[in-house]
Amino acid sequence: MAALSCNAYALGLSHRRPAGSSPRRMVVVRAEAINPDIRKTEEKVVDSVVVTDLAKPLTAYCRCWRSATFPLCDGSHVKHNKATGDNVGPLLLKKQ
Amino acid sequence: MAALSCNAYALGLSHRRPAGSSPRRMVVVRAEAINPDIRKTEEKVVDSVVVTDLAKPLTAYCRCWRSATFPLCDGSHVKHNKATGDNVGPLLLKKQ
Ligand code: FES
Ligand code: FES
Repeated sequence: MAALSCNAYALGLSHRRPAGSSPRRMVVVRAEAINPDIRKTEEKVVDSVVVTDLAKPLTAYCRCWRSATFPLCDGSHVKHNKATGDNVGPLLLKKQ
Repeated sequence: MAALSCNAYALGLSHRRPAGSSPRRMVVVRAEAINPDIRKTEEKVVDSVVVTDLAKPLTAYCRCWRSATFPLCDGSHVKHNKATGDNVGPLLLKKQ
């Protein structure tokens, strides 16, 4: 048995049209959460960096929501991109 | 007519098992891209900020991949969170 969970990633809605009406409309909505796990008790995950506090010349911050060291990047975007065909990566903060 | 695109977000695979074998295994993979549109010709979207170049006391950087001003946040995470039940938000860079 194969179980397939279908998410409403792309959901087209249209209706039987009365004669003479305009063609069916297709409404596409994207309804997929991108953060499955991180700090889900928070209504909105916002992080702040006081840039004068940065210790290293370069610090990578996660934008893929898969890092075990979020908000820092731990390289997990590589696995995510491979698994999904995605192309996401971090934001690099540079001291100069 | 309704069109529903099902993505392999949660895909369980198992097989008819021979008598006496162990129970079916369920393999769950997360295989959903989180960036549908931004700079898809780039293999990996990485952005750099030289923090000494920041003009404003506070600058918000997008982590939801829905901003029209990416890599900056334009508030689109609000719409994404409402549509999906997600809880993502920006990274705030503060000069102090
Ligand atoms: S681990 Fe998320 S962007 Fe690198
Ligand atoms: S628009 Fe993407 S985090 Fe705000």
